[in-house]
Amino acid sequence: MRILILGGDGYLGWPTAMRFSARGHEVSVVDNFSRRRWHTENSTDSLTPIRSLDDRIEAWQQVGEGEIRPFVGSIEDHEFLERVIAETLPEAIVHYGEQPSAPYSMRSREAAVETQYTNVIGTLNLLFAMRDRVPDCHLVKLGTMGEYGTPNIDIEEGFIEIEHKGRRDTLPFPKMPGSLYHLSKVHDSHNIHFACRIWGLRATDLNQGVVYGIETEESARDERLITRFDYDEYFGTVLNRFCVQAVIGHPLTVYGEGGQTRGFLNIRDTLQCVELAVANPADLGDYRVFNQFTEQFSVAELAELVRESAEHVGVSTQVKTFPNPRIEAERHYYNATHTKLLDLGLEPHHLGEELVQSMLKTIQLHRNRVIQRAILPHTTWKAGELEGELSDVARRP
Amino acid sequence: MRILILGGDGYLGWPTAMRFSARGHEVSVVDNFSRRRWHTENSTDSLTPIRSLDDRIEAWQQVGEGEIRPFVGSIEDHEFLERVIAETLPEAIVHYGEQPSAPYSMRSREAAVETQYTNVIGTLNLLFAMRDRVPDCHLVKLGTMGEYGTPNIDIEEGFIEIEHKGRRDTLPFPKMPGSLYHLSKVHDSHNIHFACRIWGLRATDLNQGVVYGIETEESARDERLITRFDYDEYFGTVLNRFCVQAVIGHPLTVYGEGGQTRGFLNIRDTLQCVELAVANPADLGDYRVFNQFTEQFSVAELAELVRESAEHVGVSTQVKTFPNPRIEAERHYYNATHTKLLDLGLEPHHLGEELVQSMLKTIQLHRNRVIQRAILPHTTWKAGELEGELSDVARRP
Repeated sequence: MRILILGGDGYLGWPTAMRFSARGHEVSVVDNFSRRRWHTENSTDSLTPIRSLDDRIEAWQQVGEGEIRPFVGSIEDHEFLERVIAETLPEAIVHYGEQPSAPYSMRSREAAVETQYTNVIGTLNLLFAMRDRVPDCHLVKLGTMGEYGTPNIDIEEGFIEIEHKGRRDTLPFPKMPGSLYHLSKVHDSHNIHFACRIWGLRATDLNQGVVYGIETEESARDERLITRFDYDEYFGTVLNRFCVQAVIGHPLTVYGEGGQTRGFLNIRDTLQCVELAVANPADLGDYRVFNQFTEQFSVAELAELVRESAEHVGVSTQVKTFPNPRIEAERHYYNATHTKLLDLGLEPHHLGEELVQSMLKTIQLHRNRVIQRAILPHTTWKAGELEGELSDVARRP
Repeated sequence: MRILILGGDGYLGWPTAMRFSARGHEVSVVDNFSRRRWHTENSTDSLTPIRSLDDRIEAWQQVGEGEIRPFVGSIEDHEFLERVIAETLPEAIVHYGEQPSAPYSMRSREAAVETQYTNVIGTLNLLFAMRDRVPDCHLVKLGTMGEYGTPNIDIEEGFIEIEHKGRRDTLPFPKMPGSLYHLSKVHDSHNIHFACRIWGLRATDLNQGVVYGIETEESARDERLITRFDYDEYFGTVLNRFCVQAVIGHPLTVYGEGGQTRGFLNIRDTLQCVELAVANPADLGDYRVFNQFTEQFSVAELAELVRESAEHVGVSTQVKTFPNPRIEAERHYYNATHTKLLDLGLEPHHLGEELVQSMLKTIQLHRNRVIQRAILPHTTWKAGELEGELSDVARRP
């Protein structure tokens, strides 16, 4: 199958590209290297020493796998995007090509506008290019569980049947997202749903939970194939951050009460889910939503798991409460349905001490690369980038 | 009160500015004249011969009313917007400053991106400027009833209580909008709701129905104060378009079956509603939604009303079915709650023959200004601007 990966140089995009290539698909990747640029701007970096895209592609060929075709450019540039689509004629597009960080989107007006512009306009360009060039192509779009927020009812997969005043309809699940980044994904979802309804496109919106893990089957084959691993306040996800904190002897940064509960999944399961979505495409005109995670945890539970796992390999770690830079419920009901991917055959890798310990081991190898300054948050939901109290804590640790 | 009107040169913005000024408020208006520009680009124009903004403001002073202060620029330009807000320190902002046309948003990728960029990024800039400069100011934002689409359950005012699997929550009403323009308003609603939740701003989102009418109390005081009146495929609303069609002897353009039912209101009631919202502000941190219309009609009912009203003043008119350029249900359930503005004291002007006949009379005065070419649609939801069949009909009438 001809598969185009948008954001194919990223944490998930690069392993996804390798996975499909390993399965014999014809894979092209698009990236504008914005994640690398944002890291440069913040004086931060991936924990793992990732190679350039061309080096990665060369290494992938040298380990005996196929060709991955790179296209360097932004999907906000519609002429570039249309050219890529006309040239590659994809049968499936996996769309990771967005600004993916909630705190980044909250740091300033500029970052908020950049986030909503990049994500919403980029995806709009994509929908038009698909309509005009490859109307049968299946869009597999990475959304986020964060689109739903934390309602006091069970979260369904994209749609909910509502009975109201004696009548009944199945409608999009109401959204109460928690950041301007999460909002951009809500906007995308509405736009994509529309494109399916009006233009007959087909799409699967993967409302993904929080991803953890470093290694995938393919990335383990050569050190040059390793994917990025972020632990900074902007691009690091919570479990990855806790593991790095444990290794460098930093207290685990639990925000507030730590009762924030979310869906989580292993990076290996992200690849499985995307593969399942591509292998079982939506019908023409159909907009499907899958909730893509395997287990629910609270932040405090994760901190405790990391603390214990570290202790059992002789690393002593503190769990500490930090003032919550976000505005969010710290105790709330949370129960999200996630059966559609299981029904398609997903076999979850569950989280446990063994996995955490293997992450700690890999992080240990790169511990000299950790930038301490990047650990604590500088951005609050209330006021953007801080000059005050929390920032002082963060800047003078 | 210090009131800032965004889009203060427009169909509703200009009469709103006069209304608040007549009530003794300190009124400033912002406009970038994009509606005038779009008309120039389409070789179309307002039916009414509107004056320049400066002429209007001068005339308003000459009829003995106060000063209205103009600021020329775009809210997408955040430096301009921040300067205006810092200079005027508004206590209420009435936000009409958006691209308001569904067909315009569907004509091309460029127009779709322009619409979502102008509306979403402009409003984001506004929210940040309010947070940073006037956090107590009340935002009165014009949304649209079209955000809801046509669900098979009753439409509530912004939020709905859902009982689901034995639990209960009040959540944003699910949205299924019918164009990329309507989607931009859904995106705005989500962003504004977030700004109220996170930053403690206050906002009233007026989900307005389709507006009709020409004259308001203030615009009637001097011919130089008249507001614009659009009847073209992009900026004309359905009843206004039907009245112009009747006057020039063109068949009334009912799309498809004409069973499309929507909420409608008189332009005088728009002013009443906006006044009521401003006079009864939301609490800090509160995001309110009012459904702003007074009556529901189907398109076929409106066509019949115009036909009859015209006949009774000696104008014979045909009602004709045209292929529907939109993709929408032509028969559907529609029942939308709209009690919140009535509870605040709204006294509706109901639609009847008398109002239609007074519109026909005013249109008659300007019938030599009608541009026939602008009557039929050239844009379809399926394919954007047409080169084919419907366009041929439209271009060679």
